[in-house]
Amino acid sequence: MVERMPLERCGLSPGKKARLHRILFDNGLGNGTAIFLPYDQGLEHGPRDFFANPAAGDPRYILRLALEGGFNGIAIQIGLAEKFYWEYAGELPLILKLNGKTDIPSDAAALSPLHATVADAVRLGAEAVGYTLYVGTPSAKADFAQFRTVREEAQRFGMPLIVWAYPRGEAIEAKGGKDSFYAVHYAARVASELGADVVKVNFPHPEKRAAVPSDYTREFSSQQAIDEVVRAANRTLLLVSGGGKAGDEAMLEKARESMAAGATGLIFGRNVWQRDHDASLRFVADLRDILAKYPTTERG
Amino acid sequence: MVERMPLERCGLSPGKKARLHRILFDNGLGNGTAIFLPYDQGLEHGPRDFFANPAAGDPRYILRLALEGGFNGIAIQIGLAEKFYWEYAGELPLILKLNGKTDIPSDAAALSPLHATVADAVRLGAEAVGYTLYVGTPSAKADFAQFRTVREEAQRFGMPLIVWAYPRGEAIEAKGGKDSFYAVHYAARVASELGADVVKVNFPHPEKRAAVPSDYTREFSSQQAIDEVVRAANRTLLLVSGGGKAGDEAMLEKARESMAAGATGLIFGRNVWQRDHDASLRFVADLRDILAKYPTTERG
Amino acid sequence: MVERMPLERCGLSPGKKARLHRILFDNGLGNGTAIFLPYDQGLEHGPRDFFANPAAGDPRYILRLALEGGFNGIAIQIGLAEKFYWEYAGELPLILKLNGKTDIPSDAAALSPLHATVADAVRLGAEAVGYTLYVGTPSAKADFAQFRTVREEAQRFGMPLIVWAYPRGEAIEAKGGKDSFYAVHYAARVASELGADVVKVNFPHPEKRAAVPSDYTREFSSQQAIDEVVRAANRTLLLVSGGGKAGDEAMLEKARESMAAGATGLIFGRNVWQRDHDASLRFVADLRDILAKYPTTERG
Amino acid sequence: MVERMPLERCGLSPGKKARLHRILFDNGLGNGTAIFLPYDQGLEHGPRDFFANPAAGDPRYILRLALEGGFNGIAIQIGLAEKFYWEYAGELPLILKLNGKTDIPSDAAALSPLHATVADAVRLGAEAVGYTLYVGTPSAKADFAQFRTVREEAQRFGMPLIVWAYPRGEAIEAKGGKDSFYAVHYAARVASELGADVVKVNFPHPEKRAAVPSDYTREFSSQQAIDEVVRAANRTLLLVSGGGKAGDEAMLEKARESMAAGATGLIFGRNVWQRDHDASLRFVADLRDILAKYPTTERG
Amino acid sequence: MVERMPLERCGLSPGKKARLHRILFDNGLGNGTAIFLPYDQGLEHGPRDFFANPAAGDPRYILRLALEGGFNGIAIQIGLAEKFYWEYAGELPLILKLNGKTDIPSDAAALSPLHATVADAVRLGAEAVGYTLYVGTPSAKADFAQFRTVREEAQRFGMPLIVWAYPRGEAIEAKGGKDSFYAVHYAARVASELGADVVKVNFPHPEKRAAVPSDYTREFSSQQAIDEVVRAANRTLLLVSGGGKAGDEAMLEKARESMAAGATGLIFGRNVWQRDHDASLRFVADLRDILAKYPTTERG
Repeated sequence: MVERMPLERCGLSPGKKARLHRILFDNGLGNGTAIFLPYDQGLEHGPRDFFANPAAGDPRYILRLALEGGFNGIAIQIGLAEKFYWEYAGELPLILKLNGKTDIPSDAAALSPLHATVADAVRLGAEAVGYTLYVGTPSAKADFAQFRTVREEAQRFGMPLIVWAYPRGEAIEAKGGKDSFYAVHYAARVASELGADVVKVNFPHPEKRAAVPSDYTREFSSQQAIDEVVRAANRTLLLVSGGGKAGDEAMLEKARESMAAGATGLIFGRNVWQRDHDASLRFVADLRDILAKYPTTERG
Repeated sequence: MVERMPLERCGLSPGKKARLHRILFDNGLGNGTAIFLPYDQGLEHGPRDFFANPAAGDPRYILRLALEGGFNGIAIQIGLAEKFYWEYAGELPLILKLNGKTDIPSDAAALSPLHATVADAVRLGAEAVGYTLYVGTPSAKADFAQFRTVREEAQRFGMPLIVWAYPRGEAIEAKGGKDSFYAVHYAARVASELGADVVKVNFPHPEKRAAVPSDYTREFSSQQAIDEVVRAANRTLLLVSGGGKAGDEAMLEKARESMAAGATGLIFGRNVWQRDHDASLRFVADLRDILAKYPTTERG
Repeated sequence: MVERMPLERCGLSPGKKARLHRILFDNGLGNGTAIFLPYDQGLEHGPRDFFANPAAGDPRYILRLALEGGFNGIAIQIGLAEKFYWEYAGELPLILKLNGKTDIPSDAAALSPLHATVADAVRLGAEAVGYTLYVGTPSAKADFAQFRTVREEAQRFGMPLIVWAYPRGEAIEAKGGKDSFYAVHYAARVASELGADVVKVNFPHPEKRAAVPSDYTREFSSQQAIDEVVRAANRTLLLVSGGGKAGDEAMLEKARESMAAGATGLIFGRNVWQRDHDASLRFVADLRDILAKYPTTERG
Repeated sequence: MVERMPLERCGLSPGKKARLHRILFDNGLGNGTAIFLPYDQGLEHGPRDFFANPAAGDPRYILRLALEGGFNGIAIQIGLAEKFYWEYAGELPLILKLNGKTDIPSDAAALSPLHATVADAVRLGAEAVGYTLYVGTPSAKADFAQFRTVREEAQRFGMPLIVWAYPRGEAIEAKGGKDSFYAVHYAARVASELGADVVKVNFPHPEKRAAVPSDYTREFSSQQAIDEVVRAANRTLLLVSGGGKAGDEAMLEKARESMAAGATGLIFGRNVWQRDHDASLRFVADLRDILAKYPTTERG
Repeated sequence: MVERMPLERCGLSPGKKARLHRILFDNGLGNGTAIFLPYDQGLEHGPRDFFANPAAGDPRYILRLALEGGFNGIAIQIGLAEKFYWEYAGELPLILKLNGKTDIPSDAAALSPLHATVADAVRLGAEAVGYTLYVGTPSAKADFAQFRTVREEAQRFGMPLIVWAYPRGEAIEAKGGKDSFYAVHYAARVASELGADVVKVNFPHPEKRAAVPSDYTREFSSQQAIDEVVRAANRTLLLVSGGGKAGDEAMLEKARESMAAGATGLIFGRNVWQRDHDASLRFVADLRDILAKYPTTERG
């Protein structure tokens, strides 16, 4: 178990602290935890992700769901932000996702190009920006270079920078795959070393030991693994991603272990909205019950 | 009596609306009204303004007072914002005052030079910027030109622009003085015509009729005057300034008439902090009781 | 008596804190106090200031004196910095004075034009920059505008900004003169409101009561006055200037009262080098004895 | 044995000299030697490097270790610098590492992309920047081009440039490997030729003679080899890297030979912090004993 | 008597030193002294200056005279540089004069506008640039600001910057006039403080004591005065201007005293070319005899 970092120990500039504070204490449970609703799957996977609950294909439905569910923010691409956020502007924090790609070509040399800038986020009144960084790919040089421009602009504007830290590429596959403890552990650290204020990772799977580096072939419980991942991120706040839809109890257990490990919160999309409206809210209520047990004081 | 303008009828860009919404609904009474604490008197009048309550010379005392009193924001200059806001960043909206001057030379051709930019406000996580516009002075050309650069930058960044609209200069003195209904009425309209999102005016004195233009020599009640001032500002939200310290009952009556007229709120400084801590909070509680009677619904 | 502000409560960016920390703890007494040697009189008054001790006309003599005397830094203009600092670069902090003027024309509308930029200071390895701001003059608009560009550049580079806050001009003369408690008190606050990290003021003269605003006509001791001046500067560190050469005991008493008031230190030029070398060092030793009594802990 | 170069004979601009002087004479032993703590392994190798001493995964632990151990500086990436340096800003020189990569993909065409700029280093109050240059790889064209932009910016800002000069790639492997005398000798010279102010190399292994060019197949002692490497670097100060953790006596012997050869100092990471806290400090004390025997006078 | 400063003690960048070294050691007597031919009188006074020797109106005549006379350089404006220098390019150092004005309006608020840039000087192969700075005028703010841009560009390009430091304006007239010891002494220091590499002054007249500040009413010999002027300029090399045509013996005596005082050389125009060709060369030969007595060693 790792203690959660209070904002004032995180080396944040006043602007980054102000915006993160508003996200964490003026929204959601208001207790320093967070649950975000990511809604970039229409770009990342295509609209087939909405077949399970066609209403979810409408961004306005999702924005209202985020409000009703008491989320701490919604993460969307620039096009949906321009067309849908104005109606609820200020009622819910906007996390403007700055890059993204389709899943049509292979992920072997994955790189997610920029579609928007931090200046767009400022203009729209967003409280944070999101960037997908693929760790371990052959495109890492271009990705790191692109990321640097975003980090600099976020620093200049005092805008919190949330990094989707995703292990990808053939070298990752050859070393145990993208969900291994090794891969997730390393990805969390890379985001922290490169300047993320918040990092979003998948839950690590220490039981996937085939081909991982020898340090990771030991026995680790999932709690031990997520503890280490949070520790690797140090003063970078950590969010655990839901990933594809899975059984509710498994998801809730992931959430419990993550929060116990010192994660700041969750970022769950398909597990939330790939079911009907009321079921979505019931599932979110269960997640909120978990978060309520892990408050951070407003001043550290 | 004038109906208060809901945000979504004000022609605001998403960023301006998001920020104003957070100021009005995530802070203070959360009912769409506002009470702001202005604290630029150390620059505008010098530190002698703090002799009445020496504790008030410490910006940290003022920030804490604003938090305890449930204010919707604090308006300070860049120097104090840099040095004091970080500790409370995000706990209270910052209105960065962009210009200001001393009262050492005469006000005959008053012009308040810029000390900071809208980009500074973005960087610090401020939710609005403030600009003092002197209406009617011989320096108006330079003032309007300087204001234009601020308006443009505020527009680009989605940052709400609050204008301190102050009649000043010898021509104003020759036409009834800076507190006349004529002068305040005109100043409110000028701010609206030039692009203010919010305007701060002094309470109008329709009884000061000496030398004012003939249209204003009729009998107007103070309620009629403030009604007209709010109407002149149209979709520019209006705040009434407290000015120098005066009797509490007179101030509360000003507040009541202003809110009845459709003002969005109050911006009271010396009347709040030129007394001891507990007396300040008691006075603010009385103001909040008035504001509580004038809620706006979150969506119009 | 006012408590001295530890650096980590001053809202400084990491770069400003790093540089101020090195000035205050790696130089001089290393106890958080400072004594600086200003050497811009060759520009401000002309080389006649060196007639009292011709050796002092040589900048190299002054640099060596600053090293031998254990000063925390030397404040010089760009021309001398380029030609003399390289020899001692890193052995003593350089404060690059960015503006300055001659005393040939009258001071009625004094404005001190820029000769160098913060980028020059970075390039030369300086640890701070200095700017002379004339408070209360008819040129204040131009001065404030020029100052803003310096403040922004200093903020961008993490360079501490020391403001020489000097009341000047006919309005100041009409209100009691540049050394009155009123004028010095106001000047310290203006520097703080506009974004100085450190402010240099003359010692206030509360006994000069002729024509000052009524708040200042009361009886104040010099200790009370300097206490209030330090308080007005709040988180802006305060240095007391020596001014023209005066009697040693009077200067030491100024120094004692300033340090007791919570000043960070002294900036004494002519009182140091307008005497022969050994006498200079003896006087500095007396000043250091005073500073040694007012340590600040390295972490607040 | 090679004489160590005094700073004033190195052709440094005043800013570079000022910063290097502060690193070498205001920190560590203050005798012109240096021992740096590199801490970029979380990015370069991943957090598994911390399994040997989990406390070392916390950057704050490392910063405190550097302070307690009397290091001359710590070398970290931008993310950790932003989040951790502020607390100790100015207490210890920061070397901002500007580029870095993971070890996930192969090193065949290694290139370390930029994550930060010299302007970031200036803003954070860093005293030097670090750049990893891979000598001999197929990516050298891109690497040299990228390096040029860094060198130019470092020159403009007067910021010392420390080059991690690492032989890499298949051609190096084909000619004896990255630790051969040939490879290290060549790498030191390349850094000097391209504009490094300081170069960090691995200790050369003249006994690895298989496949090296014929000039290097002669018998050289390790002392002869490191002598030649220091000579090849000429006025570029030289640091010897510790590399992976090895036996203490071997490391101390490397240190002795390096200092005898005229190296300026050491940059040891894993050998320091991959053991418990007190053992780290004991090992550092042994290194300091060696450095104490090789002082340089402050002025050459 | 003041010792002349060797170039390597002047804090010059490599480019400035390279160019000055070529001027001083590859031209003229090659002994570190200099005599320059200024030829901007056609702009400053108009072509009537050529009536005394009509041939001198032809810039080609002047260039050839400079070559024949063994001058260390010629100072001309951009128009003549473009049209005449190509023919002798490289045979004689070009000092490109960057600003200048006519004498048609009054000198009360004299300011000399820029006509060319340091980039022009680089393009033309010039070895230095010249700038006229008027010290003490009401236009000093604009002049200092303009000068700053030139100084920065000269620094960036490594181009030596020669300042024509001329006291001017009503305040100077009121304090003893432009040739007084006070005025020349102050002007030399101002150039040095603001960043001149070389300063050109008129010979001081200590006997002009009417209205000068009291420090200058003492008895000073002309040798004492020029000694002090050179000392005030410190590491800024000093050239003595010839001014209007005067008696040869007086001019030679000025030259002797200047060189004895430690001046680097002379810049004589009208005294040279306002006589026929052979007389010009004879006079120059006399000046060279003086300079030959004051060699500086090439390395200090």
